[in-house]
Amino acid sequence: MQRALSVSRTTGNRSTFPDWYQAIVREADMAEVSPVRGSMIIKPWGYGVWERIQQTMDRRIKEMGVDNCYFPLFIPLGFFAKEAEHVEGFAKEMAVVTHHRLKAIDGKLQPDPDAKLEEPLIVRPTSETIIGDAFSRWIKSHRDLPLKINQWANVVRWEMRTRLFLRTSEFLWQEGHTAHADREDAVASTLEALEMYREFAETVLAIPVIAGEKPENERFPGAEATYSIEAMMQDGKALQPGTSHYLGTSFAHAQNIRYQGDAGGLEYCHTSSWGVSTRLIGGLIMTHGDDDGLRLPPAVAPRQIVVVPMLRDKPEDAEVLAYGQALVKDLNARFALGEPIRAVLDTKAQRSADKRWNWVRRGAPIIIELGPRDAANGQVSYMRRDALRDGDKVKSHLTPRDAFVEAAPALLAEIQQALYDEAKARLVSNIKTDVTSFEGLAEYFGPAEEDDEAGSAFKGWVRAPWSKPTGEALDAVEAKLKALKLTLRNVPPDQPSTFGPCIFTGAPGVEEILIGRAY
Amino acid sequence: MQRALSVSRTTGNRSTFPDWYQAIVREADMAEVSPVRGSMIIKPWGYGVWERIQQTMDRRIKEMGVDNCYFPLFIPLGFFAKEAEHVEGFAKEMAVVTHHRLKAIDGKLQPDPDAKLEEPLIVRPTSETIIGDAFSRWIKSHRDLPLKINQWANVVRWEMRTRLFLRTSEFLWQEGHTAHADREDAVASTLEALEMYREFAETVLAIPVIAGEKPENERFPGAEATYSIEAMMQDGKALQPGTSHYLGTSFAHAQNIRYQGDAGGLEYCHTSSWGVSTRLIGGLIMTHGDDDGLRLPPAVAPRQIVVVPMLRDKPEDAEVLAYGQALVKDLNARFALGEPIRAVLDTKAQRSADKRWNWVRRGAPIIIELGPRDAANGQVSYMRRDALRDGDKVKSHLTPRDAFVEAAPALLAEIQQALYDEAKARLVSNIKTDVTSFEGLAEYFGPAEEDDEAGSAFKGWVRAPWSKPTGEALDAVEAKLKALKLTLRNVPPDQPSTFGPCIFTGAPGVEEILIGRAY
Repeated sequence: MQRALSVSRTTGNRSTFPDWYQAIVREADMAEVSPVRGSMIIKPWGYGVWERIQQTMDRRIKEMGVDNCYFPLFIPLGFFAKEAEHVEGFAKEMAVVTHHRLKAIDGKLQPDPDAKLEEPLIVRPTSETIIGDAFSRWIKSHRDLPLKINQWANVVRWEMRTRLFLRTSEFLWQEGHTAHADREDAVASTLEALEMYREFAETVLAIPVIAGEKPENERFPGAEATYSIEAMMQDGKALQPGTSHYLGTSFAHAQNIRYQGDAGGLEYCHTSSWGVSTRLIGGLIMTHGDDDGLRLPPAVAPRQIVVVPMLRDKPEDAEVLAYGQALVKDLNARFALGEPIRAVLDTKAQRSADKRWNWVRRGAPIIIELGPRDAANGQVSYMRRDALRDGDKVKSHLTPRDAFVEAAPALLAEIQQALYDEAKARLVSNIKTDVTSFEGLAEYFGPAEEDDEAGSAFKGWVRAPWSKPTGEALDAVEAKLKALKLTLRNVPPDQPSTFGPCIFTGAPGVEEILIGRAY
Repeated sequence: MQRALSVSRTTGNRSTFPDWYQAIVREADMAEVSPVRGSMIIKPWGYGVWERIQQTMDRRIKEMGVDNCYFPLFIPLGFFAKEAEHVEGFAKEMAVVTHHRLKAIDGKLQPDPDAKLEEPLIVRPTSETIIGDAFSRWIKSHRDLPLKINQWANVVRWEMRTRLFLRTSEFLWQEGHTAHADREDAVASTLEALEMYREFAETVLAIPVIAGEKPENERFPGAEATYSIEAMMQDGKALQPGTSHYLGTSFAHAQNIRYQGDAGGLEYCHTSSWGVSTRLIGGLIMTHGDDDGLRLPPAVAPRQIVVVPMLRDKPEDAEVLAYGQALVKDLNARFALGEPIRAVLDTKAQRSADKRWNWVRRGAPIIIELGPRDAANGQVSYMRRDALRDGDKVKSHLTPRDAFVEAAPALLAEIQQALYDEAKARLVSNIKTDVTSFEGLAEYFGPAEEDDEAGSAFKGWVRAPWSKPTGEALDAVEAKLKALKLTLRNVPPDQPSTFGPCIFTGAPGVEEILIGRAY
């Protein structure tokens, strides 16, 4: 039987993983390329997923004692000057505003030369500098600490090669920024954000991740430590959907963020920052999608149960509709996964078979088709999107209506768990731990050219001991890996007590690190 | 006794309404001027109010069957070219992006000349054109109609003179855009949005408004009809916090938004658009603020009940804190105004008297101060922010703790209603209806120079019959009013059956219209 999606991730000549990804974005109605180079239009179903991410994460952010604010879209060019002084060959891909007026001159619309800005404005690539500037004004004494601020906003980083949700010039994100009196408190806050991301990814998105510290060469510039969560996509590559940075006092020095300590003197604050973006949606797709389209974990699905009435322009239609409405009402009065159930009756003017496949492609967790017989017999026939087929055949479950309503919360929780378990099994069984040399690593992953090509084999990650080289020795490791399109991901928290020799230097290993190809 | 706010709106030489407004924005910690000209930083308490506005309005927008989307921040310059062709001397105050990279050249950071965009990009002043472009792709047949889309986003319109929340170069807003098969459906949708705004302003913000149609000269360019809600501020001026436009088919013609009708031919859609912005927060301040600061209606207050423990670094502190925590927990388990109560224990390291006045200035609806005696006696001493004083003296109410918890939902509802009633009384008693000539109007409002000056008198609005002139005759009316800094506001829905002569033309009146000074 034909799959609902036009492109499969596993079969056919042209059916590579990137094609399959694009097909889901398109056919699940998540987003589309816009007339503005590098920017996307996030369509209702995709934006509904983002709203669910925002709502559920925002609750967690507020529970951490963090307040939301809003900072300006534009940042004066001068705010970047300091950074430019210190970075040789500084060049930043950022959108630069140079004029504040358009004018029709000789019939052609153009920036008005009389409205050139004295100092260009930058469209924020991050709000780090402007929030730091505010912190320097807001923080006076230790009583103002810790200061914990978060912002949900759009940011722009000019990108030449874009892919919807994964890499776009404009994207939506949240950025948390905190200031503390001492290192201990700042590190604790950095790790609290990391743990929040881990718990959020696993509980809400059903994406198993490994939360750990990035190696020195992968740190956010200026950070003393960068932590990430790393998820394994269905092509075996790593996606880093969230990072948390302990910035030491370097940003406080750069922006003069100081407080009067108990002793009376001025002390520099220790700061942290952490963020996730619409990239999470790319991670959702590449973790849970199948050859029929997207499969959404119920906790993040804008609609959890969709009821499709099979209407035939006949008098029975009224009965089917009434039956469907009452069913949706009863479902929405119940709670699943800690919130009211989100069920809906799809009354759009479309063929019911088309509607069913639309919802399959979009990944609604439970899809119910109601006909006159169901209404007459008080029954419900439903499909579970997480386990849609038995071989090629679509599986449908028939159950008494009241029993279905009763069981719906447990069913949604079960689907949430099943999607997590499936991804978790993939993650744990695809981390290779028997590589003992760089040659072994190179052999396992194969030449870089095989990456991104049609039919590239699933490799997963390697977890290997290393000696944690720094400086030039680390640069050398990075270069060797880069030639294979590999990167060091992070250091998992669970570590053995003894280590084999470093696969890069041969020196005694001090920890195990994850290595893989990545988005 | 001294007022909590440093500036009064009614007394003193320098204490004009604008000074008082700025003092509230500052002292209630709502927002501050940013280092970026014309842009503001919205601080946690101000952003908390915006979040409440978003959440409560978004629920209403979704109930209207409208889906949220996200469209790009940037709009290609070419999208404005059509408009420019038709508007003589077209000049638009918009932020223009001309480069996509910064580079340090001779040690000076500047836009990289090698990274000049072929076509400049405009930072959206509204998303009308780019959403229209999407509609032209998304709409194929009558089955795709109505199409109803909303976006919550930041927009930029370059402003020379800015005032926090009321007029800033960047602001936050929502813009709804709908397309319909026929006029009737589009007009119904336009009016549904208007009614949603009216109900929202009155129910959530406790701001009484008059919802009506704007006169022809105040229409959104290209609209067939523009409707507004108009609110009266405490200085008597009008603030228009929301508009809804029926755009006919003109936008559909400009953007080729067509559908295949039942007969098979292509028909142009009828469209509407509607929006509100962070300006609503300016309206909240100018409607409900008093000489002690802001007073927030409970439905929009981020915190409805704030408990300030009076701590003395003594062993009793623990008891007071435990008593406060239990109180907050019990309050938060109850519902008021249809949602769980939002109570909080303020444990910040600050003097309790400072905390109390901070919450007074911020306008928390109920402020409780708890001392050891309250904990020992099982009682609660609270202040109602809507009725803080008896003469100059601050009023405090003592009540048994359980009785307070029991009564809290009704008390919050009562405060919500009291703030509405107070503003409603001001609105209805300050619409002058006995002006019968333009001379009478001019005499009543006085010379334009008296506006915006210290101690300018409260005038309110005039409601007068007019003959609804159009074209040049209307231009003449507008010019005469402009000389007095007056504008036509809107036509209230409740109209008498007969009218006096038009105060502008002397011709027979056909409806009554509101006239006033405005923000």
